[in-house]
Amino acid sequence: MDLNINALRREIDRIDNNLLQMLQKRIEVARLIVRFKKEQNQQVNVPSREKEILDSLMGRERSLLSAEVIKDIYETIFTECKRIQVEEKPLVAFQGEHGAFSEMAARQWNSGVVPIPCAEFTDIFQGVSEGSYEYGIVPIENTAGGIVSHVNGALRNSDPPLYIVGAVEMSVHHCLMIPPGTDHRNLRRVYSHPAALAECSEFIKRMDLEPIQYFDTAGAAKMLAEDVPEASAAIAGELAARYYNLDILMEGIGNEEHTRTRFVVISRTPYSEQGNKCSLVFSIPDKAGALFSILKLFADANINLTRIDSVPDETSNFAFFVDFAASDQVPEVQEILQEIERKTLGYRFLGCYREL
Amino acid sequence: MDLNINALRREIDRIDNNLLQMLQKRIEVARLIVRFKKEQNQQVNVPSREKEILDSLMGRERSLLSAEVIKDIYETIFTECKRIQVEEKPLVAFQGEHGAFSEMAARQWNSGVVPIPCAEFTDIFQGVSEGSYEYGIVPIENTAGGIVSHVNGALRNSDPPLYIVGAVEMSVHHCLMIPPGTDHRNLRRVYSHPAALAECSEFIKRMDLEPIQYFDTAGAAKMLAEDVPEASAAIAGELAARYYNLDILMEGIGNEEHTRTRFVVISRTPYSEQGNKCSLVFSIPDKAGALFSILKLFADANINLTRIDSVPDETSNFAFFVDFAASDQVPEVQEILQEIERKTLGYRFLGCYREL
Repeated sequence: MDLNINALRREIDRIDNNLLQMLQKRIEVARLIVRFKKEQNQQVNVPSREKEILDSLMGRERSLLSAEVIKDIYETIFTECKRIQVEEKPLVAFQGEHGAFSEMAARQWNSGVVPIPCAEFTDIFQGVSEGSYEYGIVPIENTAGGIVSHVNGALRNSDPPLYIVGAVEMSVHHCLMIPPGTDHRNLRRVYSHPAALAECSEFIKRMDLEPIQYFDTAGAAKMLAEDVPEASAAIAGELAARYYNLDILMEGIGNEEHTRTRFVVISRTPYSEQGNKCSLVFSIPDKAGALFSILKLFADANINLTRIDSVPDETSNFAFFVDFAASDQVPEVQEILQEIERKTLGYRFLGCYREL
Repeated sequence: MDLNINALRREIDRIDNNLLQMLQKRIEVARLIVRFKKEQNQQVNVPSREKEILDSLMGRERSLLSAEVIKDIYETIFTECKRIQVEEKPLVAFQGEHGAFSEMAARQWNSGVVPIPCAEFTDIFQGVSEGSYEYGIVPIENTAGGIVSHVNGALRNSDPPLYIVGAVEMSVHHCLMIPPGTDHRNLRRVYSHPAALAECSEFIKRMDLEPIQYFDTAGAAKMLAEDVPEASAAIAGELAARYYNLDILMEGIGNEEHTRTRFVVISRTPYSEQGNKCSLVFSIPDKAGALFSILKLFADANINLTRIDSVPDETSNFAFFVDFAASDQVPEVQEILQEIERKTLGYRFLGCYREL
């Protein structure tokens, strides 16, 4: 560590950044425990556990940190955990670190939910199935990279079945961000997810930066703030800059001006209010006319199809994901759905929900 | 992250462990800033800086953490920083992470000092020279690995000159430690500094563990507590186990039963009280009788030499590090030192200090 006042202050900023992320994570995990206990009908508040934690922390060897400070800080943390527990905002799991595009989509869908980061898509599906999270949000179509096929597969094969209860389409604005105090004229490297690096390839080339692959866009921003590697920037969404206190140097740096991603929100229970959009999936043999007869049902009823994607499935048939703009409460729609179920294999109604 | 109650609780323990280390570091760096400012005659408390930090932290994007909690926690931190500042315990820099053998030696030397971890030995010498730390503690002789030559060189060439103001000899007891809840029957890997792995090679072989090199003994213990790699233990001193809340599975696992290391404490100013031990360094040409005439001075005065180490120096002469048990306040000793200075090249008196 360099011993001059500016270096020491930068070190303080770096530590505070990490402390904030760690406190956030601390409270999130405590919130997950509450959710888990309620799911299992266990007692939520166990004062002995708080005492056990505090005793363990205060009993450890320390150099400059006094036991009273630990006590004060943890009492604040415990109180906050209890407050959040009473609040009982629903949890929505997303893939990536805080600040990810998926989290931006979750907030756009419903500003009253608490976004919880997950490492993998499978963690989201498993967590929602088991009731650890009320909701999950996953990208399902992308104007740049086409459909997100493993998400579609997981949705189709979920057991117990998961329902789509919402959808949101979002513009993806890639931003170039740097830690405060970085001299932008000296930038040499840029960290991001391979897909984001590819989507901004022209900009990266023009700026003569070395692209370095990172597992996640927001994760790259987090790493940048925590480790402050020399002469480096990250590409991520603007929410990541606000989480990790990075300065946005430039926005809208993608090759395509308007990249849009559509996300769906999944849940164990179907959407309870009146929807305006339905999703379903079915398989049909790979033969002429098979799909046509189904599409004709919608055309005859004057119902607008908003998506149709074919995915080869394991039995050498094709699985079709179809979205249409109508409510499944309408008798005519119910008739069409019954007709489709008769005509196809592996039919599954994925949900009726509101999409703006 | 696994979603079951035990996995979530282990995650909480891991986060708390990290939080504690981070808080410790936060207060240490704040303490260094105070020391730095005093050294530069700058104003120590700048309320605007506290406000700036708080505004920045509270203004960031967050999910579950409320602004009030951040405010509460940081007010506790700021108050603690002020308390420590008033206390003004002297700082002693050591190489390694908290829990290192050097930190154990620093505490054994003087329980009233605040040990500050440094990455490199050169950071210690530089920091003490510049007045960032009142003291530094460095290993100087080791029964297992002989003299620690780069430390001796740095001491000899320090500019401005640094003085030895204390010394402490300590038994090195290597301990095998694991995170609580680890099943010791499944251990497969052990992390530690290469020297510690070598000193415990017979034990590691007997236990059929894979030794994995880490830059530091206490650093390996810290990593074990923070990342909890599967089926893994660390070898470090017992202080590291107390810092990182690890369980000591076995102690005294070194090949040699009694490994001892001698540490010296360095400072910008000489020891001010009556010492009982002196250290000096000088060079003499590589010819017969040159050393003998110097050793004879001590023998004639009946002064006990407690250390003599020869190190080849850059001019193809030999540098000799000599310790003897006496005070430099004694007129007879002063005469001997003047005689040595006349007879040798590059004479430097390193200090007179107390060693028990």
